[in-house]
Amino acid sequence: MPKDLTRLLAPRGVAVVGASPRQGSVAGEILRNIVRYGYTGEVYPVNPKHDTVNDLKCYHSITELPDEADLAVLAINRDLVLNAVAECGERGISNLVIITAGFKESGEDGIKREQRLQQLIVEYNLNVVGPNCMGIINSDPAVSLNASFSRWFPSDGEIAFISQSGSLGETVLEFFEGMSLGISQFINLGNRAGLSENDFLLHLANDDHIRLVFLYLESFADPHLFRRLVEGIGRTKPIVVLKSGRTQAGAAAVASHTGSLTTSDVIVDAFLSQSGAIRVSSIKEALTVLGAVRWGAIPEGNRTVILTNAGGAGIIAADACERVKVDVPQVSESVKERLASFLPPEAGLGNPVDMIATASSSDYERTLHETLTEADAAIVIFRPPLVFNEPPETVAEGIVRVAEENPGKPILVCTLSRSANLAMFRERLAAARIPVYTMPETAVEALASLCRVGALWRMRRPIDRYVSVDTDEAREIVEQALTAKQGALTFAQGSDLLSAYHIPVCPFAYVEGDAASEAFAAQVGYPLVAKIDATNLFHRFEHGAVITGVRDEHELRTAIDRLHKVIEEEKLSGGRILLQPMIEGRELIMGVNRDPSFGPVIMFGIGGTFVEALKDVSFGVAPLSIEHARLMIRSIRAFPLLGEFRGQPAVDISRLATILHRLSRLSLDIPQIAEIDLNPFMAGSDLAAVDILIKL
Amino acid sequence: MPKDLTRLLAPRGVAVVGASPRQGSVAGEILRNIVRYGYTGEVYPVNPKHDTVNDLKCYHSITELPDEADLAVLAINRDLVLNAVAECGERGISNLVIITAGFKESGEDGIKREQRLQQLIVEYNLNVVGPNCMGIINSDPAVSLNASFSRWFPSDGEIAFISQSGSLGETVLEFFEGMSLGISQFINLGNRAGLSENDFLLHLANDDHIRLVFLYLESFADPHLFRRLVEGIGRTKPIVVLKSGRTQAGAAAVASHTGSLTTSDVIVDAFLSQSGAIRVSSIKEALTVLGAVRWGAIPEGNRTVILTNAGGAGIIAADACERVKVDVPQVSESVKERLASFLPPEAGLGNPVDMIATASSSDYERTLHETLTEADAAIVIFRPPLVFNEPPETVAEGIVRVAEENPGKPILVCTLSRSANLAMFRERLAAARIPVYTMPETAVEALASLCRVGALWRMRRPIDRYVSVDTDEAREIVEQALTAKQGALTFAQGSDLLSAYHIPVCPFAYVEGDAASEAFAAQVGYPLVAKIDATNLFHRFEHGAVITGVRDEHELRTAIDRLHKVIEEEKLSGGRILLQPMIEGRELIMGVNRDPSFGPVIMFGIGGTFVEALKDVSFGVAPLSIEHARLMIRSIRAFPLLGEFRGQPAVDISRLATILHRLSRLSLDIPQIAEIDLNPFMAGSDLAAVDILIKL
Repeated sequence: MPKDLTRLLAPRGVAVVGASPRQGSVAGEILRNIVRYGYTGEVYPVNPKHDTVNDLKCYHSITELPDEADLAVLAINRDLVLNAVAECGERGISNLVIITAGFKESGEDGIKREQRLQQLIVEYNLNVVGPNCMGIINSDPAVSLNASFSRWFPSDGEIAFISQSGSLGETVLEFFEGMSLGISQFINLGNRAGLSENDFLLHLANDDHIRLVFLYLESFADPHLFRRLVEGIGRTKPIVVLKSGRTQAGAAAVASHTGSLTTSDVIVDAFLSQSGAIRVSSIKEALTVLGAVRWGAIPEGNRTVILTNAGGAGIIAADACERVKVDVPQVSESVKERLASFLPPEAGLGNPVDMIATASSSDYERTLHETLTEADAAIVIFRPPLVFNEPPETVAEGIVRVAEENPGKPILVCTLSRSANLAMFRERLAAARIPVYTMPETAVEALASLCRVGALWRMRRPIDRYVSVDTDEAREIVEQALTAKQGALTFAQGSDLLSAYHIPVCPFAYVEGDAASEAFAAQVGYPLVAKIDATNLFHRFEHGAVITGVRDEHELRTAIDRLHKVIEEEKLSGGRILLQPMIEGRELIMGVNRDPSFGPVIMFGIGGTFVEALKDVSFGVAPLSIEHARLMIRSIRAFPLLGEFRGQPAVDISRLATILHRLSRLSLDIPQIAEIDLNPFMAGSDLAAVDILIKL
Repeated sequence: MPKDLTRLLAPRGVAVVGASPRQGSVAGEILRNIVRYGYTGEVYPVNPKHDTVNDLKCYHSITELPDEADLAVLAINRDLVLNAVAECGERGISNLVIITAGFKESGEDGIKREQRLQQLIVEYNLNVVGPNCMGIINSDPAVSLNASFSRWFPSDGEIAFISQSGSLGETVLEFFEGMSLGISQFINLGNRAGLSENDFLLHLANDDHIRLVFLYLESFADPHLFRRLVEGIGRTKPIVVLKSGRTQAGAAAVASHTGSLTTSDVIVDAFLSQSGAIRVSSIKEALTVLGAVRWGAIPEGNRTVILTNAGGAGIIAADACERVKVDVPQVSESVKERLASFLPPEAGLGNPVDMIATASSSDYERTLHETLTEADAAIVIFRPPLVFNEPPETVAEGIVRVAEENPGKPILVCTLSRSANLAMFRERLAAARIPVYTMPETAVEALASLCRVGALWRMRRPIDRYVSVDTDEAREIVEQALTAKQGALTFAQGSDLLSAYHIPVCPFAYVEGDAASEAFAAQVGYPLVAKIDATNLFHRFEHGAVITGVRDEHELRTAIDRLHKVIEEEKLSGGRILLQPMIEGRELIMGVNRDPSFGPVIMFGIGGTFVEALKDVSFGVAPLSIEHARLMIRSIRAFPLLGEFRGQPAVDISRLATILHRLSRLSLDIPQIAEIDLNPFMAGSDLAAVDILIKL
């Protein structure tokens, strides 16, 4: 049930518990911030030692507070916090911001203190931000509350900023101010003993004032809820996430088996992209992305035209486009002809279009008008040349007119200079919500982030395809195996399980006498593979339990004899021998593993060398839509190998994506499955799992 | 012969030809710039129409100028330029800056005009900057000359900035100013009809005032000279190059053969890295690198410690380190113990070391002192907390003391804030040449660039190993082939040529009757490969001219018969049949191609799939040192496949690098070789070229 955070963010009155006139007192600082930034409600200092604090009446206890005190900010000694929280609960103050540190972040005593706090939160049904946080800010002029010790109070705007870290939060506030990025709400989550990012996302969903959300997270309070919320909210309010802690990913040793290939940060990447959040890697990138997205038209594709009156800067912009994968397609011949009719012969008519230093405002307007018909966006570089006979703002006005004709196409302007001469130029563009950058590469990075948002938004909602899966059958198979105390499924069980989800399996037959084997051989044709199927055998190849390239009846008998010996030697009780045809094609690998916090994670790669030596695999978090599965397949470096190659036809990517989707569905439907490993999964004239390992 | 540019850069007097009091006159603007920025020499306006310009005596012709006029700046109508240049030559003024455009950049007439200009340059032995340029600047207070129409005059400093583009040059000047990066000399090269970047590099080599060189280039005037100069100068003065025009690389279709694999920008990358220049990709990156390198101690490795009083920022810094490949190794147990003796129990003692918000100046100093013993560099994050009982500069002073103890270890400081409170803090650090950044990721990028410089400087000079190559023998083989009008060498000739350079070739024998073939088979053992050797056959596999896996005498005869038929059908006159043993191992590919401007380019990759579908190859420009060849081998993505893998021993990288070096040497020694293609080159228990294609 969503929590009602209205009074937390817009209280009628705020009590500051621990407020003191003493210099260096955190509560005193918060009290001053509340007053200084013009809070529109009442302020109530609480401190048994004072009658007034900073000319305000001071209450001696929480119990005495008036009914209008909707929110209490606690900045008191850690040993007093629990008592004060209980008092708030008793007094009916259900919104609290606990600044005090010394909870789960600091040793065993702290952990116990936080557990006790959580009990109180449940007991009194409280909305608690913190503990160990900097506070909250609501800069909506109707509220104007700085209930934090931040030295920065943002101007009101369309962004909500939720930060797990306090110091980083304040840094971001400072830089948002520098970039005129308005923030309506700032929440420093701290330890999240009560409220988490998810509670605030739920609340924001219905706040029309907020158009953009920026999250700084070091971990997720509840990834599944987070994903559902972002999937919903992120379609209308872009959600930018700076998730830190990538370093573990680098350190993780990536080994040859499905399980250990899973490293946490690549999963976070997949998870955020599947959720529809825009992940950034640094504060600077966050600022660029937010600056672009707050105004930006979202482009329908990623083709841009670059216009410039300074050749070098145009080349630098084009280079930057290539780095961030924004297309700079050539201008068509017909548009070139039209440009040639008014641009001088020295102009470069490719893309970038170099209109040279003499370009007039009319050259800018006409060239932008002509070229934008063939692109999704434009980078316009205007550096006022030494001799320029018009005021620069006439160039801006022309750009604005073309922008108005093309509402869905972002235009990003770059000046190469911070010169004061350009003040009016910038102003005109800002009024039309056209962003202006100094460096071409920054404008290009901003465009790239708009393209990313466009791509996310164009992606259809993940639709689970419930067609033709037989969950009951699958559950039955797994339950039987569990009853039989199997640690893994037999090949036959695995095949049945996969078949219940229409995941294709290579034909096979158990060896049950020479006649049957020969009949199977006659049916599928030589060469064959013979292998041992035993539920306590996980690495067939290492134990000599697979014989490939069996070419005739004689070789088949030899192989079967040899495998019988292996069964005996390796004590593979219940082991049986299995025959399969040799399948030609590309060797793939796919599987499922369970991550402790994200749940089932689906893995895909090209088998053999690529997985083992080059770690070239991709991941998706269940549920995995077919569309994301397609992205997963495309994102491996060796993807070109799945195209038509050396006489082999292209692999059917759509079918492959559907199979990954079905694996994700299976892993969600049957939580008893600990691990699935289809290695190899062959993609030849048909697709089929050749080996199956399903652990319970 | 190096040109004497002393008087060009520090003239006794400057003539401004075309100077006029008229608003919007470029020459007038340059004249004003010369006066405004306090040029210490004499200024002579030249214009037949005026007696004075801006209160200065105006000369009516170049002929009248006094002897002190060492430099003439021409900003006159394009049709008057050649005449004025000749007049300067006659008058003995040998240094010219030609601002005027309308030369080779603008059509056929312009090209002719530039050719005529070049004749005059030779005739009068002139030093000419331009035409089509913005001018030159020397901000050394002894000269203080702004002979350009740039609106920015840099403060004096240790950087020389040479830019091919004018507008971009001015943008950079503006931003250098904003970053307090002093520039001693700015040269806008323009069309380079006379002087190029190389002439200025030669001059700078002996200018002790200059410690850093920044080049913006769109092309190289003479790549070989450039490389020699950078190899020399770059060891003492770091040379940062922003070479633009990467986009072509993206567009170039990379096909399966050596020739077309060569795309220009990857060659430029290799070329610059081999030269020892630091390539940057954007103006912002250039500013970061120059800002770091101007002060920075150059680290001996790339291990850094991160100290912080704000946890989140520490994590962001660590993430950024991983992105730019700076190591963040764990702090050792013994140092951890020492840190634990004075840091609070809540502190995080890994790396980043999170000293938490209460960290004092003494905590900073002691922690930095302890941890720096185990690292090559330090990132120190200091965000003044709300309650801080010391002036922030005491923290700076502690950092400076540790820096003085560790002169070879760069310390980069980050504040997370631009707060004015930190003015003294910044000042103390700047005085000790310790750079201060706001964002952790910027500090990390700066450190990464210092690490790059360190790596370049640690790299030994390329030493050509003249051991045991027989150039005479190689030349003889090629000359014989040319005399015989061969377009390519036969396999036997190729083998002899490679052997003369000790590049190993797989054993082979031509088929000369059954007995000899069988003797060869007996000697090397089955299976064999049989193939056709013909100088007009370039793609053996496509013509059925290779038969592999020949297992016995019978198969051998069949194979030979089949190949004889191919020779007949494909009209391969002079074609012979060749036998080789099948070599096990990893299939490599290496070759040489000639780039029109860079000369021989050496290519390396792993054969088959990797080259054909994944374009996973690397390049080096001859001469290629063994050390760079090793880097080339390591830089392919599939490099891990050359290690111990699936029971195959690791490939001998040193020998492989030596072979690439020998190929480079061969291609330089014998310029008649147009192309070498060793595909496959097998790396098994031994290394050997299995197929050889050498075009003349």
